[in-house]
Amino acid sequence: MAAGRRPGPSRTRETILEVARDEFARRGFDAATVRQIAGRAGVDPAMIAHHFGSKQQLFLAALQVPFDPAAEIAGVIDGPSGQLAARLLTRLLSVWDSPAGAGAIAAVRTAVQRDETAGLLRDLALSQALRPLIAVMPGTPEERLWRANLAASQIIGLIFTRYVVRLEPLASAPPPDVVAAIAPTLQRYLTGPVERG
Amino acid sequence: MAAGRRPGPSRTRETILEVARDEFARRGFDAATVRQIAGRAGVDPAMIAHHFGSKQQLFLAALQVPFDPAAEIAGVIDGPSGQLAARLLTRLLSVWDSPAGAGAIAAVRTAVQRDETAGLLRDLALSQALRPLIAVMPGTPEERLWRANLAASQIIGLIFTRYVVRLEPLASAPPPDVVAAIAPTLQRYLTGPVERG
Repeated sequence: MAAGRRPGPSRTRETILEVARDEFARRGFDAATVRQIAGRAGVDPAMIAHHFGSKQQLFLAALQVPFDPAAEIAGVIDGPSGQLAARLLTRLLSVWDSPAGAGAIAAVRTAVQRDETAGLLRDLALSQALRPLIAVMPGTPEERLWRANLAASQIIGLIFTRYVVRLEPLASAPPPDVVAAIAPTLQRYLTGPVERG
Repeated sequence: MAAGRRPGPSRTRETILEVARDEFARRGFDAATVRQIAGRAGVDPAMIAHHFGSKQQLFLAALQVPFDPAAEIAGVIDGPSGQLAARLLTRLLSVWDSPAGAGAIAAVRTAVQRDETAGLLRDLALSQALRPLIAVMPGTPEERLWRANLAASQIIGLIFTRYVVRLEPLASAPPPDVVAAIAPTLQRYLTGPVERG
């Protein structure tokens, strides 16, 4: 940061989140400490408690960055409903393929390690990513939640297969190829027939 | 084990694998040590090297247990090809919902933590789970591998969503409901049209 300029509250918040993301990704949720994060961010641990609350809440905040899933999804909701899945997948690949994606990949890997942090990921998926989709789906509330679960299963699977397990050729496939292959599935989950047995 | 009875080689192997699964799941790949595993299993570390080779190979062996993916898949290949996905999903849910599934869930969570162990999971997926499927798919070798990647994305996504992230209602849904909703997708990936963009 520029010498002689005192960081404002929002810059401090960003610094804390950047350090937290790095610490959680490198050490895992258990080993990372608020004290260590505060030390590297150059703030008092009490300031982190004030801004974010608990270590869990800090992690949740760190998971939400470097992009806002709700905002990304809101950006693709408008348009022909028959191409919603294609727009959603195109946006998802463009964000996760970008430099910002690396932080998200690290966060997701860390999140699935333990029940507690996997629960944070579940909360994040439901409150941020799936809610705006549920709002535009057809069916009863129960059916919409079922659709959202199915959509999550394909989206989470794509993220893990392409970015974590890195199965080839999916990991290196051009985004239009991935969208062409997976959009029909996701579109069915979002708006098509999704029988229960 | 029964007093006064010396364990045979296959019992020793099983004991080592059980301890290894538990240690890898609890400590992660990096922190777990062959020495510690040998200690808890009551064997010399040299015996682990003899039976399994490196720590990576021991981990791969631990990942393959408590069930053999290749054998499970071989058991559902025969039958009408139009219902292959339904048979595959039904078998997958029955194994992962069983007590044996808990060990597999722990192993998968551990595996995705690091590039090295995610690579083991990739090798496992390709060599054990996908190869018997690729053998019965239509298309060129390149297209079959693409199909296998897409199938993996839905299967891995189902596993993470139902067993790790535990999104509801998918996590508690009766197997026939899950099969009815997801089989059409998996069937398309295995034998239907899978265009590239």
